[in-house]
Amino acid sequence: MKTIPGLSLVNEDLALVECKMREAPHENIEPLATALDVILSSGGKRLRPALALLASRFYRPPGDKVISLAAAVEMLHTATLVHDDLIDNALLRRGSPTLNAVWSPGATILTGDFLFAWAANLAAQTENVRVMNIFAQTLMVICSGELRQLFRRSWREQTREDYDRRIYAKTASLFAAATESAAVLVSALEPEVQALRDYGHQLGMAFQIVDDVLDFVGSSKEMGKPVGSDMRQGIVTLPTLHYLEQHPDDELLAQVFEGQADNPIIEAAVARIRQAGAVETAMDDACAYVKRAQAALTSLPANGIRQVMLDLADFVVQRRT
Amino acid sequence: MKTIPGLSLVNEDLALVECKMREAPHENIEPLATALDVILSSGGKRLRPALALLASRFYRPPGDKVISLAAAVEMLHTATLVHDDLIDNALLRRGSPTLNAVWSPGATILTGDFLFAWAANLAAQTENVRVMNIFAQTLMVICSGELRQLFRRSWREQTREDYDRRIYAKTASLFAAATESAAVLVSALEPEVQALRDYGHQLGMAFQIVDDVLDFVGSSKEMGKPVGSDMRQGIVTLPTLHYLEQHPDDELLAQVFEGQADNPIIEAAVARIRQAGAVETAMDDACAYVKRAQAALTSLPANGIRQVMLDLADFVVQRRT
Repeated sequence: MKTIPGLSLVNEDLALVECKMREAPHENIEPLATALDVILSSGGKRLRPALALLASRFYRPPGDKVISLAAAVEMLHTATLVHDDLIDNALLRRGSPTLNAVWSPGATILTGDFLFAWAANLAAQTENVRVMNIFAQTLMVICSGELRQLFRRSWREQTREDYDRRIYAKTASLFAAATESAAVLVSALEPEVQALRDYGHQLGMAFQIVDDVLDFVGSSKEMGKPVGSDMRQGIVTLPTLHYLEQHPDDELLAQVFEGQADNPIIEAAVARIRQAGAVETAMDDACAYVKRAQAALTSLPANGIRQVMLDLADFVVQRRT
Repeated sequence: MKTIPGLSLVNEDLALVECKMREAPHENIEPLATALDVILSSGGKRLRPALALLASRFYRPPGDKVISLAAAVEMLHTATLVHDDLIDNALLRRGSPTLNAVWSPGATILTGDFLFAWAANLAAQTENVRVMNIFAQTLMVICSGELRQLFRRSWREQTREDYDRRIYAKTASLFAAATESAAVLVSALEPEVQALRDYGHQLGMAFQIVDDVLDFVGSSKEMGKPVGSDMRQGIVTLPTLHYLEQHPDDELLAQVFEGQADNPIIEAAVARIRQAGAVETAMDDACAYVKRAQAALTSLPANGIRQVMLDLADFVVQRRT
């Protein structure tokens, strides 16, 4: 995120969020302490807490409660990743070994549960009933989204509506929770709370589309995981949906999604989707979400924070990792 | 629980708790709806929600918020069981197949997560910051307890202190949370909140000791799982601790805990611990906790509810399943 100069505004706050996350009471369970350190050090962009911090800074510098909220949001995200990686048998994340790559399934499940518990405790530190409610509801949306994906219909029956619902559950719901909750904590007026929630929501949709696009166009080195990994898991994302609209009878994709494809065939399918322009169409969709995110901010004061949030939205569709 | 006549006092409330738990928004994810139905129908004693309902009835009939709390407590318990059974590879619970016996690990993990989320939502329905805090902290205690057990020291190094801490985390913490939270919701005076918390805490310790004893003396048919199942998993419970105090060099137990024992050897070890009177000593410990639970109630009004709670404590050490 260092490519967005304006985001330096929240760098100091983000350091406080890191400290807050590390307050997790591991109670001298040595392997847990080590795992927490590894998980928190491998970092990630910390975009979700940055959103909460920015939404708060529209009104005032974030106090302890906003720091706790930002930490809660990132911790909830982290907890879901720990379980997701185990379920997907993913061995790398951000180029580092996942917890399930080095630990037993049992230890990984319980560490994920511990992180959920810590996230709930951080949310409770806001001492705000509405925020705790938003938090619990978002956790529910995320979990049912994952279950829906697990029990999804066949790849041929997937629709754009399915996709939109999935990326809302997976990503946009937590982005929206971050900005909405921060606005609630600083006692923003209700229309402003809704505007900030909408910004988070639209931005999250754009972010996830770009994530899905990068699975087609990123290099495996940059992404820290093999190209086409969604397809390898049988997951239909937006570029594939656009491609299938034009080429419903493609044999190569049928092989991939019916699990009969080896690596060269998967790479050929990725190349075919890229060459057909499906990635560009998906990026157009992402840009439309970015515009909606930016439009949501028009009712808010035109200050420096708003500019950073506008720039951040542009960055989301420009990023390469 | 039908053997305690006084508990019929909360039977109608418990029916409301069942309905509340079933409000889980499965969002037309058909397999999830089925799983929720199976999990909730297989029931269990519903002792935890009964405790919350009784603690509330000390003051007044439980309103919607106490019903939500009672449902939250039972749902949290249920969620932990779903993950525990997966981790322990337990195929039966209460005589019925576990979720992991019929589903993939991934589906089981996500369903457990969904139940945690639903529990958090039910807790949020109390709209009480202190209750939501108790709830989040209890979840943390439970999760760290499970991690501590997973990364436990060798069986020979286990102490009574380790055991007490483990059964507090596993059981007593949630019993205490149930009674404390209910008292908070009905605005009991602080000394009464603490007395009811203490009752739940002490009762939970007794309950778990009895559970551990039943693993030695219950029949596998009554218990719905094989006798000696803790030892089979390498877990040292109170009867084993008492036995080892007297017979630190027992060869049979060494074989069992070092994983070199087949079924007849495990059954012989169980018989040996029973014959040595270690079960009776453990039951004495459970009775001491029951007396402490009952003593905690002395400062509360001597009404019908108090009598039910005193009887319930006696029942905990008399139960056979």
